[in-house]
Amino acid sequence: MPKEVAATTQHDSDGSNAAQKPQVCKVALVGFGTVGSSVARILVERPHTGLRLTHVYNRNVARKKVNWLPPEVVWTENIDDVLSSDADIVVEVMGGLEPAEDCVRRALTSGKSVVTANKQLIAHCGPELISLAWQKHQQIEFGASVAGGVPVISGLHEGLAGDELVRICGILNGTCNYILSQIESNGVPFATALREAQKLGFAEADPTEDIDGFDARAKLAILARVGLHCEVAANNILARSISGVEAVDFEYANQLGCTIRQISRAELKGQLFAAVQPALVPLTSPLARVEGSQNLVMATGIYGGETVFGGHGAGGNPTAVAVVSDILAIARGKQAGDGRAGQPVVKSPAVTSNFTTKHYLRFLVRDRPGIIATLATILDKHGINIDSVLQKPGYPKSHLPFLITLEECKASLVDHALQQMDALDFMVQPCLHLPIL
Amino acid sequence: MPKEVAATTQHDSDGSNAAQKPQVCKVALVGFGTVGSSVARILVERPHTGLRLTHVYNRNVARKKVNWLPPEVVWTENIDDVLSSDADIVVEVMGGLEPAEDCVRRALTSGKSVVTANKQLIAHCGPELISLAWQKHQQIEFGASVAGGVPVISGLHEGLAGDELVRICGILNGTCNYILSQIESNGVPFATALREAQKLGFAEADPTEDIDGFDARAKLAILARVGLHCEVAANNILARSISGVEAVDFEYANQLGCTIRQISRAELKGQLFAAVQPALVPLTSPLARVEGSQNLVMATGIYGGETVFGGHGAGGNPTAVAVVSDILAIARGKQAGDGRAGQPVVKSPAVTSNFTTKHYLRFLVRDRPGIIATLATILDKHGINIDSVLQKPGYPKSHLPFLITLEECKASLVDHALQQMDALDFMVQPCLHLPIL
Repeated sequence: MPKEVAATTQHDSDGSNAAQKPQVCKVALVGFGTVGSSVARILVERPHTGLRLTHVYNRNVARKKVNWLPPEVVWTENIDDVLSSDADIVVEVMGGLEPAEDCVRRALTSGKSVVTANKQLIAHCGPELISLAWQKHQQIEFGASVAGGVPVISGLHEGLAGDELVRICGILNGTCNYILSQIESNGVPFATALREAQKLGFAEADPTEDIDGFDARAKLAILARVGLHCEVAANNILARSISGVEAVDFEYANQLGCTIRQISRAELKGQLFAAVQPALVPLTSPLARVEGSQNLVMATGIYGGETVFGGHGAGGNPTAVAVVSDILAIARGKQAGDGRAGQPVVKSPAVTSNFTTKHYLRFLVRDRPGIIATLATILDKHGINIDSVLQKPGYPKSHLPFLITLEECKASLVDHALQQMDALDFMVQPCLHLPIL
Repeated sequence: MPKEVAATTQHDSDGSNAAQKPQVCKVALVGFGTVGSSVARILVERPHTGLRLTHVYNRNVARKKVNWLPPEVVWTENIDDVLSSDADIVVEVMGGLEPAEDCVRRALTSGKSVVTANKQLIAHCGPELISLAWQKHQQIEFGASVAGGVPVISGLHEGLAGDELVRICGILNGTCNYILSQIESNGVPFATALREAQKLGFAEADPTEDIDGFDARAKLAILARVGLHCEVAANNILARSISGVEAVDFEYANQLGCTIRQISRAELKGQLFAAVQPALVPLTSPLARVEGSQNLVMATGIYGGETVFGGHGAGGNPTAVAVVSDILAIARGKQAGDGRAGQPVVKSPAVTSNFTTKHYLRFLVRDRPGIIATLATILDKHGINIDSVLQKPGYPKSHLPFLITLEECKASLVDHALQQMDALDFMVQPCLHLPIL
């Protein structure tokens, strides 16, 4: 906790508390990239918050220097300058596991509270770091690690603390959402939409983390811990790529009153059901209306029903808002020593991706008679009921896309059936299998 | 703050902290209506939260007794039993200004923290009560006073603390939203929709508080204080009734790509612009999609952009979730003594409802030649530009509804023009004037 704490009075207009001396909470920034410089900007532009930036650490710090920070700020490329300083709070906005983890451990050990925007770090070793903070009577806050500026961590942890949450479902990756929106609105192939997103800076040169769902599942692991009180390793959450989704899938989805989004969901029902994958969502759902890089999280509790949090999931300024909110929370004196009181017990349930839903199977085949009969026979053998068969006209017989939707059943049943089906000689590519939410 | 605080360990699965004795935070309920009994229900069903219900106060308490609360709970109709008890937190869920205000003051004075769901109380004397709590080293929390189960108070106060919010816009009254949705989807007159809502329990026998916007403006005053740090008396906020809105207005609104909702909005631009009134909202806005008794709040900050909070705005269980979340926040040790650190300064700006928007004017006239010319002349004299004139066919000449939309201008300009227009002999009723958001 901060040694000194900002103590501006709540009403200064009446002057009654004017004698009270405002105190200051000292903040050291570790990392001065997009988020770090936005945090610094907010700290200098909002002096009334009682926060003072004292240090900026970055590798090769000379190339990072800006002229809009007060001259007192110490710029350094030696992390020990930060750790041995009198800063109350270390803000880790480097990203990545190392050296971030080492820095955060050493900061907590040296008696500083920590604010981090690092989803990998928190997904990977959040509980350990929280324990360490607790031992050292410090705090670690990580509101910016999920959904950028959307205050979903504090919303689940505090605003909905009185509920018993059972389900979390959301759009946690703006890159995937942007790419899918582009395929939907422009009818372009996946590869084109990805290249476009890369050109515009919405996707990385190596987009694997986003496209394949690894980014979102780290965030989902954090949300499962904070909201459902379930400890789950990100690696144990199914992550499926959006790269198989093509324009034709949006046409079929639309005929079903749906669109396609990368959905992260976790549901506690004895086991923890959890997955990140492209899915069909009804056009009437708030999830269907999330645009561009926006994020949205729906939390369902047994008492309060469904609560929605939405906003900017990425970007320097929105993420910096989450960081500064966390700094203020520590400065306002949520003391680490009390941080565990009234906390629910954390469970470690078995993790499965075997959700029961309706299913969307989009095949690409070399057309010949008897294909549907063959597929229907396999589905029937697995005890799976077909809900509908749809085939749009106008495609070549050599690459014919068509759709089978299935009545509600477990995902594992469908996966078994698909193993058999994908080996059939008329299949041009493996079937695209999406849950229908 | 609680004298004893719940201290369950964060991980009990590893047993490492099993020796630590869980402590308990004692809670007294003042009021045992819909919300009160839901709070009690959550407290007994979620024992792991470390909260224990010790007292239930109600007038004529005998008729309130239930068999599902532990026998140790003291049922009383004497408030002094609560105030002289060892309860740590008094939960005020009576509603109304008196005796709630007296009870809350006495609870704080006697060294208890307070959780209240009472919007009138907080809108009316929140700052005084917060000051009193501060003096007594106690806390007062009021998350349930706005938007029921939607955690917007904690969202603005904590989750978005790092931003500089400039605008809050939302749907804060489920009754109005239900009535307007009914007019929209069933094409019924306002009076019929109201009677239906009353029959179903969605509207009170005396619906004035809801219909005329008084309920929503109390909530808006609280949000302006928490989110925009502006002190404003609810009475100083313009409140206009939804009772003039008819089915024909939804038809016209739809032609403009809009629907009609009771919108509460506050915007800080030197002055505080604030109003509660029916307004046209684009069908693409999240506000347009709020259904039934749902609530939704959009907060706009200069750094983080727009953030949305949505969910169940009313009902025993959702409201009780907000109450229990507040109890837990106090139990977790957000200590009152630190509660003001890092708090922004509260401003008391001039309050105005003179927003600049496009405007919707729906007239009901006895048709004769020259009406539009007459109205256009008056608008022109006030320097107001007409954007469009719409007249749907099929209405009787004696009660002809038609629409004029205006280009962006100040509301006061339109009000002046309307004073002149409403006096004209062809007007069957005063013009319905709605802002177009």
